Amino acid sequence: MSENIQIQSQAPLRELPEPTLRRLPWYLAYVGLLKERGVDYVSSTQISKEINVDASMIAKDLSFLNIKGKTRIGYEVAVLEHELQDFLGFKRGHNAVMIGVGSLGASLIQDSGLVNYGLRIVAGFDINPDVVDTDICGVPIYDMNRFAQLIPSLKADIGIIAVPIHVAQEVCDIMVDAGIKALWNFTPFRITAPEDIVITNTSIYAHLAVMYNRLGLKNSLES
Amino acid sequence: MSENIQIQSQAPLRELPEPTLRRLPWYLAYVGLLKERGVDYVSSTQISKEINVDASMIAKDLSFLNIKGKTRIGYEVAVLEHELQDFLGFKRGHNAVMIGVGSLGASLIQDSGLVNYGLRIVAGFDINPDVVDTDICGVPIYDMNRFAQLIPSLKADIGIIAVPIHVAQEVCDIMVDAGIKALWNFTPFRITAPEDIVITNTSIYAHLAVMYNRLGLKNSLES
Repeated sequence: MSENIQIQSQAPLRELPEPTLRRLPWYLAYVGLLKERGVDYVSSTQISKEINVDASMIAKDLSFLNIKGKTRIGYEVAVLEHELQDFLGFKRGHNAVMIGVGSLGASLIQDSGLVNYGLRIVAGFDINPDVVDTDICGVPIYDMNRFAQLIPSLKADIGIIAVPIHVAQEVCDIMVDAGIKALWNFTPFRITAPEDIVITNTSIYAHLAVMYNRLGLKNSLES
Repeated sequence: MSENIQIQSQAPLRELPEPTLRRLPWYLAYVGLLKERGVDYVSSTQISKEINVDASMIAKDLSFLNIKGKTRIGYEVAVLEHELQDFLGFKRGHNAVMIGVGSLGASLIQDSGLVNYGLRIVAGFDINPDVVDTDICGVPIYDMNRFAQLIPSLKADIGIIAVPIHVAQEVCDIMVDAGIKALWNFTPFRITAPEDIVITNTSIYAHLAVMYNRLGLKNSLES
């Protein structure tokens, strides 16, 4: 059992439940904070109080990692931080290309935060002659029609989609044909791809819809 | 029944299930695409094929709107687009302030896409003297210690959090005290706030964790 967990920690081989994978970065954020404050040990009960997640769920999530808490003392903060970063892949570099360097795409290229989470955007692609053959913060922007030609030398497995919705599927097909293995879709359009392609949707604007609805509900209850 | 739905369409009074609220923008994206292509009618079956959501679920989601499909013909595209935009609040302007104009915060201010979804960022706040009293794309950046003083004149209900995690909770408390009603949290830190405050978490980096895990799994199966 513990051997199995150790193998996972070096390279996650089991498909973890998505909710667990989404919670682990929360624990990492909190643990990083504790480390900055000079705290040495933390229990799942403490983490639970701070971030509003059930302590038993935290313990279960952390059981996927190669780390054991000590009774009454809890987890060693520095070790927990290291194991979480390692497990989540934030310490390994993952090359990505950005397709569409309009407003959102250019913004994401400039967000240095992504590098801290292991994502290196090595190139951008667009069809707009105003941006093709320029660079953004040192990241070269190429013409989209050179995608298949350039992708082998870029060694990127991940394609980030930040194009207008009417070309989202077309861009997705081009990337899959060129050998891209994971698509990070920032458009609200539901792209489709063969089953062996990883698709992650980050619908920033869909979150706005939820927020507006909840806010409208509160305002109408108050008035 | 139909009267009830009509009232909702003008100002959503019922708390819709979050999954429905998250899917509605997908339909909107697809319907906008059809409109560009000059298509007049669309059925839930057609939408279903295109975006991989069960047709019966689409019909159920759309039943919250003040729109009825016609048998064999489906929904009128222009009407459906209008009703979705209206219902989701994307046509109404919502004032927001950005707290933290580092890499991510500045990027989001520059993302003109947000305006298309009804979000107007009217000001930014930071403590960094290099950015305080400058502006980004015309959006003024103020000193964070002027937050409570300036917020009444800014008429903003929404606060966007893009600060380092160790000050996320502190910033959240300041905003709640100043009367902000909805918090859009881009940090991986789980903020807590009184129950009447709307919290929306957009964990861009948590999505990376899911993508890396799925990608690692595929790579290890192939090798």
